[in-house]
Amino acid sequence: MFKKPRGTRDFTPEEMQKRKYVEECMRSTFGSFGYKEIQTPMFENLELFTAKSGEGIIQEIYSFMDKGGRDLALRPELTAPVMRFYVDKLQMEPKPLKLFYFGNCFRYDRPQKGRYREFRQAGCEIIGVDTPEAYAELIAMAYTLLKNVGLKNIKLNIGNLNILSSMFNVLNLPKDKQKYLIPLIDKSLSEDVLSALQDFGIKPQEATSFLEILQTTDIKKISGYIKSDQTALDELSKLEQILNLLRDSFDIKNYEVKTSIVRGLDYYKGIVFEIDAPSLGAEKQLCGGGAYELISLFGGKESPTAGFAIGFDRTILALETEKYSFSSQKLDAYIIPVNKDMINKSLEITQDLRKQGISVDVDLLRRGIGKSLKYADSVNAEKAIIVGPKELEKDSVTIRNLETGKQETIKIKDISHNFK
Amino acid sequence: MFKKPRGTRDFTPEEMQKRKYVEECMRSTFGSFGYKEIQTPMFENLELFTAKSGEGIIQEIYSFMDKGGRDLALRPELTAPVMRFYVDKLQMEPKPLKLFYFGNCFRYDRPQKGRYREFRQAGCEIIGVDTPEAYAELIAMAYTLLKNVGLKNIKLNIGNLNILSSMFNVLNLPKDKQKYLIPLIDKSLSEDVLSALQDFGIKPQEATSFLEILQTTDIKKISGYIKSDQTALDELSKLEQILNLLRDSFDIKNYEVKTSIVRGLDYYKGIVFEIDAPSLGAEKQLCGGGAYELISLFGGKESPTAGFAIGFDRTILALETEKYSFSSQKLDAYIIPVNKDMINKSLEITQDLRKQGISVDVDLLRRGIGKSLKYADSVNAEKAIIVGPKELEKDSVTIRNLETGKQETIKIKDISHNFK
Repeated sequence: MFKKPRGTRDFTPEEMQKRKYVEECMRSTFGSFGYKEIQTPMFENLELFTAKSGEGIIQEIYSFMDKGGRDLALRPELTAPVMRFYVDKLQMEPKPLKLFYFGNCFRYDRPQKGRYREFRQAGCEIIGVDTPEAYAELIAMAYTLLKNVGLKNIKLNIGNLNILSSMFNVLNLPKDKQKYLIPLIDKSLSEDVLSALQDFGIKPQEATSFLEILQTTDIKKISGYIKSDQTALDELSKLEQILNLLRDSFDIKNYEVKTSIVRGLDYYKGIVFEIDAPSLGAEKQLCGGGAYELISLFGGKESPTAGFAIGFDRTILALETEKYSFSSQKLDAYIIPVNKDMINKSLEITQDLRKQGISVDVDLLRRGIGKSLKYADSVNAEKAIIVGPKELEKDSVTIRNLETGKQETIKIKDISHNFK
Repeated sequence: MFKKPRGTRDFTPEEMQKRKYVEECMRSTFGSFGYKEIQTPMFENLELFTAKSGEGIIQEIYSFMDKGGRDLALRPELTAPVMRFYVDKLQMEPKPLKLFYFGNCFRYDRPQKGRYREFRQAGCEIIGVDTPEAYAELIAMAYTLLKNVGLKNIKLNIGNLNILSSMFNVLNLPKDKQKYLIPLIDKSLSEDVLSALQDFGIKPQEATSFLEILQTTDIKKISGYIKSDQTALDELSKLEQILNLLRDSFDIKNYEVKTSIVRGLDYYKGIVFEIDAPSLGAEKQLCGGGAYELISLFGGKESPTAGFAIGFDRTILALETEKYSFSSQKLDAYIIPVNKDMINKSLEITQDLRKQGISVDVDLLRRGIGKSLKYADSVNAEKAIIVGPKELEKDSVTIRNLETGKQETIKIKDISHNFK
């Protein structure tokens, strides 16, 4: 027997029903915010990803040479391809340019719960604007996307990389030591941060204060800590404006300031944010985003850019964990010819109802009524329509409600009135 | 500047609009026929495709070795993965099992008009039934899918491989000579078929009769030609039943019998059909399908199977050739704060309308009214809502119809009444 490749998935009709629901819900939310959908290829020239993330990325992705000797890679993420597309074709579009997309991505990684080698992402980019209202709207959209799909318990954290950078300056930490700390901060490993700071010769009290600011959600405390850095104070005040807009104009109150968000990536600048589903444990991050600079790296004219990515698979996992009640695919009616002579008329009725937008299936196996009713049940049909010779003489059929078992005889021309 | 890989495409919002329309339309048609959507991974173990199509396929596909030394391939088609999935997980589902899917496929091929290295297919499978009504419904669905997306000029051809096989027997052609002829027949190269038959020692008159039957649409002529082969006559009579059902029950009259359809593949058995868009010239085939046997090849218990694939990209090309009028993405309203102090209230109104399912964008760049109206136009907004201090004092805004230029002052609480 043939197996699917390790770390990949097949999706049953029931799973697809959930995925389509989440995707359609997100698509309509993106649309309501004035975003427009685009798409890029499933693979790219390898150099696109090494240019953005360094040669190290090659170990983590599916890269291969095509028959023409080109180095290609299955995309591990969507921002680089979208930026390439923007530079190539969309630079002249009116600003701000609001783009969104869905796409499968690939990563050569040890498969585990909520992490697959092929996974789906939703994402967006807003290009050409860096006002507080633009960032507030972007963050509000990320939050709204996850709320609209039905998640109850999510947590929004907002930070700013300039503030973190200013905090490093308070301790006079050189770049290489910052670099060492960043992954520890990213993973909230407080003990490790503390002992690293002490190794770097920082006094215990100063190290503790630093850690306190990393963990506080209180803007006043943060501003007290970085008080001598006017640039960082300005960034903090901009962050405050964004938070006020979120609260007052977007009616989102459920957020916290978090200076320790680093997004682990070199090209992020300024505002960063993350949305978690605490119910998911270690793999709880559903969404990450912020402001970044990538356009000039890909040969375009730099313009303010911000965006985020949402893990599609984890969003579904979070919904399942919250026991969200997904609706299942229903069939409006299942049509049963009682004998061979009824087949033609049954097909005709079937086709006529389908033309009116009603989902209808019909017995194609010439089974008896009993077996057909059982099948109708297995495909989630709401009603059965039984086509028999006696009723047909009067241009009628028997219609049976499969939930209540109630049945009646109705004229063929009136069947469609039984469906919305 | 970075380029996209050769033979691949980026899709702009306008192109995505077309693609989403076609996909949604097809999805709803599949659903109305009682089909359920599934999905399989973007790549498979290479052996899945060589098992189905032979080692020769490797030259035509993207195959590569992953970091664990496994031979993988970007899928060149969707039937083999779906059959693998069926054998692995779906064999016990009630029959008939009706499945459909959309998916990108990949082929290492010289790119040309309507042929890309990454292309999209729609497809379906019905498993567990081989009655004439099942085949008629399948063919009717293929035809309806293409009609429902809006194609006017399509051509449906139906054949049966058993009949072609019987025609070969009339000439006493051995298998190797049949094999030589099949690609010529597939490409409708009549002259080449004729001269090959003469090379094989077939008398000119017999060769001409054979060619005539290949080209006729007249069932009587075909039945006269294969009159001594009862099995083939039975298949022909089954074909006739299917055609009658198409005409009488499914109201599809626009088809022709074509014995020369071969589908070029070893695993097709019996009924085969194709739907063309003649407007597309050489690359005119939109859909191909029929009955086949693949389950046992993949280790499952054989059960009657039929299905078809539709070229998604060519369907769009055919719609464009027919100058189908695709609808473009509209924005319900664009909101313009006349000065900085109006931003908060503008965002609040924006968010409130979005919650009611209205698609709304808002000026995020603090531009003047003139520039904002120009932008509103560029993003296809139907109305502009101008938020100014004087109107705001009376809880009102100015709403402007961007098509007619007509504007009026309305209460904020009444804005949503202006949108369906």
